[in-house]
Amino acid sequence: MKSRTGVVALLSACAVGALTFGLPLSTAAAPAPAMDQKALEAKLDAAIDPAELGRWLKDLASQPNHVGSAHDKANAEWMAAQFKSWGWDAKLETYDVLYPTPISESLELVGGAGAPFKATLTEKPIPGDEPTFTKDALPAYVAFQGDGDVTAPLVYANYGMPEDYLALEKMGVSVKGKIVIARYGGGWRGLKPLLAQMHGAVGAIIYSDPKDDGYATDEVYPKGPARPPQGFQRGSVADMPIYPGDVLTPGVGATKDAKRLDRKDAKTILKIPCLPIGYGDAQVLLSALEGPIAPANFRGSLPITYHVGGGDAAKVHLAVKSDWSMKTLYDVIANLKGSEAPNDWIVRGNHHDGWVMGASDPLSGMVAELGEAKALGQLVKSGWKPKRTIVYASWDGEEPSLLGSTEWAETHAEELKAKGVVYINSDGNGRGFFRAEGSHAFQHFVNEVSADVKDPETGVSVRDRARARLAVGMAEGGGRGGGENNSPQMKAAAQDPAKDIPIGALGSGSDYSTFLQHLGLPSIDFGYGGEGESGGVYHSLYDDYQHHSRFVDPGFVYDATLARTVGRAVIRLADADLPVQRYGDFADTVSTYLDEVKKLADTKRDEAKTQARLLSGNAFNLAADPTKTHVNPEPLAQSPTFDFKPLEAAVAKLKTSAGAFDAALASKGAGLSKAQKVKLDNVVRQLDQTMLRPEGLPGRPWYMNMVYAPGRFTGYGAKTLPGVREALEERRFDDARKYIGITAEALNAYAAELDKATAVVNGN
Amino acid sequence: MKSRTGVVALLSACAVGALTFGLPLSTAAAPAPAMDQKALEAKLDAAIDPAELGRWLKDLASQPNHVGSAHDKANAEWMAAQFKSWGWDAKLETYDVLYPTPISESLELVGGAGAPFKATLTEKPIPGDEPTFTKDALPAYVAFQGDGDVTAPLVYANYGMPEDYLALEKMGVSVKGKIVIARYGGGWRGLKPLLAQMHGAVGAIIYSDPKDDGYATDEVYPKGPARPPQGFQRGSVADMPIYPGDVLTPGVGATKDAKRLDRKDAKTILKIPCLPIGYGDAQVLLSALEGPIAPANFRGSLPITYHVGGGDAAKVHLAVKSDWSMKTLYDVIANLKGSEAPNDWIVRGNHHDGWVMGASDPLSGMVAELGEAKALGQLVKSGWKPKRTIVYASWDGEEPSLLGSTEWAETHAEELKAKGVVYINSDGNGRGFFRAEGSHAFQHFVNEVSADVKDPETGVSVRDRARARLAVGMAEGGGRGGGENNSPQMKAAAQDPAKDIPIGALGSGSDYSTFLQHLGLPSIDFGYGGEGESGGVYHSLYDDYQHHSRFVDPGFVYDATLARTVGRAVIRLADADLPVQRYGDFADTVSTYLDEVKKLADTKRDEAKTQARLLSGNAFNLAADPTKTHVNPEPLAQSPTFDFKPLEAAVAKLKTSAGAFDAALASKGAGLSKAQKVKLDNVVRQLDQTMLRPEGLPGRPWYMNMVYAPGRFTGYGAKTLPGVREALEERRFDDARKYIGITAEALNAYAAELDKATAVVNGN
Repeated sequence: MKSRTGVVALLSACAVGALTFGLPLSTAAAPAPAMDQKALEAKLDAAIDPAELGRWLKDLASQPNHVGSAHDKANAEWMAAQFKSWGWDAKLETYDVLYPTPISESLELVGGAGAPFKATLTEKPIPGDEPTFTKDALPAYVAFQGDGDVTAPLVYANYGMPEDYLALEKMGVSVKGKIVIARYGGGWRGLKPLLAQMHGAVGAIIYSDPKDDGYATDEVYPKGPARPPQGFQRGSVADMPIYPGDVLTPGVGATKDAKRLDRKDAKTILKIPCLPIGYGDAQVLLSALEGPIAPANFRGSLPITYHVGGGDAAKVHLAVKSDWSMKTLYDVIANLKGSEAPNDWIVRGNHHDGWVMGASDPLSGMVAELGEAKALGQLVKSGWKPKRTIVYASWDGEEPSLLGSTEWAETHAEELKAKGVVYINSDGNGRGFFRAEGSHAFQHFVNEVSADVKDPETGVSVRDRARARLAVGMAEGGGRGGGENNSPQMKAAAQDPAKDIPIGALGSGSDYSTFLQHLGLPSIDFGYGGEGESGGVYHSLYDDYQHHSRFVDPGFVYDATLARTVGRAVIRLADADLPVQRYGDFADTVSTYLDEVKKLADTKRDEAKTQARLLSGNAFNLAADPTKTHVNPEPLAQSPTFDFKPLEAAVAKLKTSAGAFDAALASKGAGLSKAQKVKLDNVVRQLDQTMLRPEGLPGRPWYMNMVYAPGRFTGYGAKTLPGVREALEERRFDDARKYIGITAEALNAYAAELDKATAVVNGN
Repeated sequence: MKSRTGVVALLSACAVGALTFGLPLSTAAAPAPAMDQKALEAKLDAAIDPAELGRWLKDLASQPNHVGSAHDKANAEWMAAQFKSWGWDAKLETYDVLYPTPISESLELVGGAGAPFKATLTEKPIPGDEPTFTKDALPAYVAFQGDGDVTAPLVYANYGMPEDYLALEKMGVSVKGKIVIARYGGGWRGLKPLLAQMHGAVGAIIYSDPKDDGYATDEVYPKGPARPPQGFQRGSVADMPIYPGDVLTPGVGATKDAKRLDRKDAKTILKIPCLPIGYGDAQVLLSALEGPIAPANFRGSLPITYHVGGGDAAKVHLAVKSDWSMKTLYDVIANLKGSEAPNDWIVRGNHHDGWVMGASDPLSGMVAELGEAKALGQLVKSGWKPKRTIVYASWDGEEPSLLGSTEWAETHAEELKAKGVVYINSDGNGRGFFRAEGSHAFQHFVNEVSADVKDPETGVSVRDRARARLAVGMAEGGGRGGGENNSPQMKAAAQDPAKDIPIGALGSGSDYSTFLQHLGLPSIDFGYGGEGESGGVYHSLYDDYQHHSRFVDPGFVYDATLARTVGRAVIRLADADLPVQRYGDFADTVSTYLDEVKKLADTKRDEAKTQARLLSGNAFNLAADPTKTHVNPEPLAQSPTFDFKPLEAAVAKLKTSAGAFDAALASKGAGLSKAQKVKLDNVVRQLDQTMLRPEGLPGRPWYMNMVYAPGRFTGYGAKTLPGVREALEERRFDDARKYIGITAEALNAYAAELDKATAVVNGN
């Protein structure tokens, strides 16, 4: 679901020289594995056939696969049958969710240069690319927009993010009573109409600018991979940063007899109409705008002078009417029962619904998962007995709002909290570099796995290749993308092959969200990318087999590599004799988050002071061009000084406890008795649930994880220590104070559980 | 001549509260001025009439004004007459220089998509804008390109700067035997064909991308100020970083009987043909390119996928033939003889030649100078007697290669070295913010002047307005533009109205170059801009009266403000009883340059080390996309460690000597006898000549100033401590070592002269 266009994310590592192949957790005095680990993983690799993944992909992506479509259901049924044929215990689990689809929609320029103009809202089929001739594709729409019929002047709001509204306000341009047009990019889609609505707009249009994924980036489809003028990006605009899943059943599974909200009370449904369009249509609307010249960072690559509007010159009529009926989700759930610890679950998932055919997103990841499942089935048939239970899921309805995974996780919450060890996710995949984000106690594990997977293009490990990219990116000033680029840990990893490469934190954008952020189940998201790009057809008619096989992953070799990566991780986790976690990595990472948050408090204080100085000196007015409208910014509340001591103490304690556990496990783990191991397993399995606090985050109690959350105003992007960080960012100073305490409580609870685990290892 | 598009340069300052109006140098025990200073400057202000400046501008810009044109000569004659009518002793000085103009030129796409296509090379006249219908405009051409007739494949080299060639090499794309097309911007025009030639190209085309000054930035002329599709930028491509002025007479005046080089021996003439074009023509050529997709920083705003070429797909025929005859320059030189120190010259200039009409560049600055001259003449008639001689110049031939100023300065070198106090320059001007660059001993003086000039749009001083912009720019992260943005001095100036705003260093791009960098005469360049923009018509047919009066400086109020600023500076300098210089500012600035240079040495060392590590680890190959051509960078020579002690000692001495002089002058200056003042004047006047070293800079001995130079590979941009800095940048380590010593010598000489001046003040 999440677009990775322009995101340079990756991961890898471990001592090249010092690395002894195999799992530390299965070495030494632990019982010898039933089959040699290296041979087992070689069998896994051999059992995964890129060509077969390609054939599956072609079938699965042959027709539209949106929620409620016949083909999406058929795919679920076919996959369940496949799992069974591979020896898995598989079934479909169904949920009933509110899922709107448009009955009618219209977008017209009714005033201004170029009017009247009726937007085509149509993705033309591509001769020679058969599936694009389908009659069953969803039209141009974004799910959970609010129906409406409005006519109003247009305003261009760049990416439609909070800072863009500040820029508009500075120019004296209001969107109140207007229709906002914003381009894709810069933040999660759903925030664009939401922020427009919060600023008083009566409608919203989202378009794909050629600068971001169209002709400026590459030749357009079918000549190249980039977005053609008529291609538009569907997607969800449900307010998922409040809660994902069925809009009518927050916090509980959308089972037949679940208690449901009235639609009017579902606060994650947008209140204003919204449509997505391509840049062919957008150029006409944008050309009609007058008013201030768009600031440099607002300008895309259309051959026009971008204006922001603000007057009445360009007037638009926008109308959307939907069918707000219930639809059925089809989750595929398959198990391989554990031989020693059947109540320890390793859960792995990828979704199967797409906005149209969904070849790259999500089916490239889905066929990797199927490849793993078939291979694991073969290993079992050849004698392998995983110690823990392996649960493979193929989620439905991820695209509209992580529906299938959330409803399943909410339905099975108690069981997952009792049995879940880890959730491993993937989604759309492509050619290029290994990346992983996730719970930082698994950072070393992720590094070990990636050290043992071969990159199909270069023959080195995917970890070595990711490290090379990191090193070159840093040397060339490009970095790895993301805020953590230049952290000392990242620099060290770029230079020293003995160092683990830090992994990023999970925000949202795929099915791990509910597991990690609502249930406290540690999660990891794996993928490849950065060379084969599906960004240009993301969520469009053109994300199909031909596009994926020509431009995203020719030969399906990276889809197969994903299968080998995740399959390897699953095997190791299922068989691990001792915890694979290294809590020192988690503690160190949280410590850097605390440093960031403290720095943020200073920055916010300086910002308010500087602004007050500038306002009192009339500097904003003096620096402005008097021939243009200029509005001074709203005075910021001066920041108080915060007492970070409770959080500092908690992080210090966490580091101590984590260090003690890691040291104890390293020195005594191999000598533990069977009973001790079971006891240890029981503590460690539920450890991450201590990160949950029952009050949840301010204004969004569904999100209970005090370390990892998607940003309220970033949507996909992670916010770590979110209760404190976001409160500082948004100048909710009382919340910041309160969540310093709450977050400290969570970390203290985490450290206390770690101490219990250490006591087990130490035989106390 | 220099385009300021996108450059945010400014300056201003001084204690608002503490400022007592008037000159420190004319207060206390100094002889009372003949007329009250404040009243004198008020008279100056009143005598400058914006409407009159506008009328002059309309006449001066009514026809093409290139070197050799009838109207340019007529303007010189008219101005000389005006000076005389205002009471000045004025004359024309003429020089004979080689000045090529094209006889024929042609550019065609002869192979590739869109071929055959013949570039229009034509700027269409604008109905309602009479002067644009002229038949006498120079065609599309760049002066001092090398004639030729070549047909070769095209390569797109972005801005054509050194880093762009590194990017091309990385992609395996060579320009050898090819014709390079590069866009304007990113560095001085003349470097584009020069670097193409150095990399083996047989021809070069420079075009104006709409991203940089066309429709992406604003509506195009005549609707708005930006460049229309057919507008092209003429200019010089003489290799001025070697030496400016007449290509045949380096170092000496181009008088009738000067010894001249043979044209073939003039090494500042390009060897390959080159033409400038508009983006209307460029789009056809660029669309024909195949090969690698242009990297993100290569992409402009044309509605195409930018490729770099490299194969034979797009083939171009380029032919230029010129008339290489001699032309006569007409410099206007006017004097007001000093009453007390007639052999102390305050020299002030602006050029009068333009590429076509040249309304903004240079005539907006020229009419400001005329306004000052008329006002100074009136002051003299009303009884004012400047103590020092004021020399006003209107230079011809600045555009092709700073011809008029250089030949005059070289001709009168001995007299200027003996009599010159300071050179003050201006050039094209526009609405907006005060800016100044120059010799740092004059930083405080510049701050004082700008504190007493009223901004016409806001009513505050132009210094206060510049400070507001600096403060807001820093708060918003935009800064002031230029590397010195975030220096502690700049931050302090942004926050504290009692602090002087640092001024930038002078590189090249206008007529101060020869005075400052060849003769060691301290120089200051003044101007306004940042709101009214002429960038879109820069060096085109459309830089005319209508454009300037509608978009650049409506009402000519900033042209008048420039006159009030420079006129004020000239009066104060002409009458100064004691030196206005503060050498501590110079010493502190040089000290920051030394810090930068030492840091650069570290950076270059780290860069080579990192590269060696990456090469030995095969990281570049592993990080590259194997489906695309990738070439590893050439291994960098490992940097030695440099002994900066001689330079550190020289800077330390300079700071001590400067501090001692400033302190002595502040405490004892007012009590100096007439004889002491004369003696002091004689030392200080020639002080900056100690910055000159006879060996000049490596490879370009004409540039003798060891502190200030234009960059060899930036062209306009200043390089400070250039002998050392550029050697480090280009890894000429022997030169770096050598110039640490030579630069230290210059600074030691400077300090020794300062000590002499201090001795005079102290009565020793």
